Amino acid sequence: MTEVKFKRLALIGIGLIGSSIARAVRQHQLAEEIVCAARTADSRRVAKELGIVDAAFESPIDAVKGADLVIFCTPIGTYGKLAEQTAPALEKGTIVTDVGSVKSAVIEAIGPHMPKDVDFIPGHPVAGTEKSGPAAGFAELFINRWQILTPCGQASDAAVEKLTAFWTAMGSKVEIMDAEHHDLVLAITSHIPHLIAYNIVGTADDLEDVTQSEVIKYSAGGFRDFTRIAASDPTMWRDVFLHNKDAVLEMLGRFTEDLTALQRAIRRDDGETLFNIFSRTRAIRRQIIDAGQETPEPDFGRVHTADDTSTKS
Amino acid sequence: MTEVKFKRLALIGIGLIGSSIARAVRQHQLAEEIVCAARTADSRRVAKELGIVDAAFESPIDAVKGADLVIFCTPIGTYGKLAEQTAPALEKGTIVTDVGSVKSAVIEAIGPHMPKDVDFIPGHPVAGTEKSGPAAGFAELFINRWQILTPCGQASDAAVEKLTAFWTAMGSKVEIMDAEHHDLVLAITSHIPHLIAYNIVGTADDLEDVTQSEVIKYSAGGFRDFTRIAASDPTMWRDVFLHNKDAVLEMLGRFTEDLTALQRAIRRDDGETLFNIFSRTRAIRRQIIDAGQETPEPDFGRVHTADDTSTKS
Repeated sequence: MTEVKFKRLALIGIGLIGSSIARAVRQHQLAEEIVCAARTADSRRVAKELGIVDAAFESPIDAVKGADLVIFCTPIGTYGKLAEQTAPALEKGTIVTDVGSVKSAVIEAIGPHMPKDVDFIPGHPVAGTEKSGPAAGFAELFINRWQILTPCGQASDAAVEKLTAFWTAMGSKVEIMDAEHHDLVLAITSHIPHLIAYNIVGTADDLEDVTQSEVIKYSAGGFRDFTRIAASDPTMWRDVFLHNKDAVLEMLGRFTEDLTALQRAIRRDDGETLFNIFSRTRAIRRQIIDAGQETPEPDFGRVHTADDTSTKS
Repeated sequence: MTEVKFKRLALIGIGLIGSSIARAVRQHQLAEEIVCAARTADSRRVAKELGIVDAAFESPIDAVKGADLVIFCTPIGTYGKLAEQTAPALEKGTIVTDVGSVKSAVIEAIGPHMPKDVDFIPGHPVAGTEKSGPAAGFAELFINRWQILTPCGQASDAAVEKLTAFWTAMGSKVEIMDAEHHDLVLAITSHIPHLIAYNIVGTADDLEDVTQSEVIKYSAGGFRDFTRIAASDPTMWRDVFLHNKDAVLEMLGRFTEDLTALQRAIRRDDGETLFNIFSRTRAIRRQIIDAGQETPEPDFGRVHTADDTSTKS
């Protein structure tokens, strides 16, 4: 593995992802100094109290000064302005990357502002939990998860190699991909799942003839599985859908077509069609488990014990 | 708690639910003898090897002979024929119940065959995992989960009390409900979640421009959460949709309407609508966790460690 060490890492935003990077970088000693910028005094205070950064600034310009690695870790909608603001303060040879769940729109937002002597490499760690904020992060978040880099002609090969080594050192598997293809792949593996999870939770909340208390009580029938990703950060996800519109609408169209076919099969008592569709899906889960992207235990490994309150603590 | 003890429990079907009941009944000594009927020789052999039943029969008629509690634990579509076959062999005063995820159709299928001197009480444990078969069961499955009973005028109050005590002894919380209302509540908390999970896994599998290998690699972005319930037993779920058609189509109509509104908001760059819908859902998850129906840990408590292969073993 390539030895990798940065002088000063600047994290713009210190939420779940930013704070997980800070912890992993510290654990693996990948930077001599870690600083962050955060909009709220509360986030800056928490980040400092947790000891995951050496300094926390309100201004992103102060954070990027002297940094040789800058990572944008805020919602995608903020990237354009942040890039414009910080660009004049970026040092020659600095690597600039991000963690946004969409890549084409990020290239459009950040790319034009980047000085020629800076290496800009868009990135996306396919990892996360439903929690938000600096206290929610943990150093192990990226282990065995994919880090997708979508270089856009604004970085040297050496810089891409160094950033690859950085993510590899935190436990990630790194894949290089075209930004447009990334956005299509993530639309189906991440964006549509979040959209329909948010949607069903909303549908259930709006019913007149089923009470919210009933939805909660009987959620173990399947509904509760959807509430996890529907508890994700609303600002982040608003920005994902606004910035990956074409791919999301394309995949949503396919999802709806398929759902209409299922609806038709139910209406027509077509058990054979239902059985055939329901039989295809076990193999895919098996492969996800075999690929180390999911736990093989029933019920996600949720604990069932005599004094079970569905917690492990 | 009422003391409860049956002479002979007959489980018709010994899959995930049947075998979990057998284990829990044995652990809490709720029956002197446990027998089962199973269609395949393999299921009968496994059930006996696991020591969870005292005898396993091919014929459901042999199983119910001498039983004072009979529980149908096969897919709903089999209930009518099983009820017709076994009715003449049922003893006076026997309690007959089931574990089907739909209740109105079950009352129609079983009710007419039941002798007058038998207590028939439809039931539904809102519990399960994505695994199937006699080896997949465990005694703790029903702890803190709701057992819904939908008496239909074919049982004495004493019989309902005895069955309530039986489920309570296995750790369940028991609720009495009207069958029609049950079917509406479960349509949104269980049936629609399964349908859309099966659907998105199918959609992803059918794409031409995103490979199956990509879907699997990047499934940690959200998709993998849906594959759990989409790995559930296809026969069981085919029968659920065929037997709860009206409620499922009603709820599916609402889900699709809401999804169309989200689609429209994305197309029109209406970030405010997206943000408002995405902000409503955290509170519901919090309440599900507070009600003991879900783990509070991020990522369902999936393990993240240095040598993580997403397993706990």
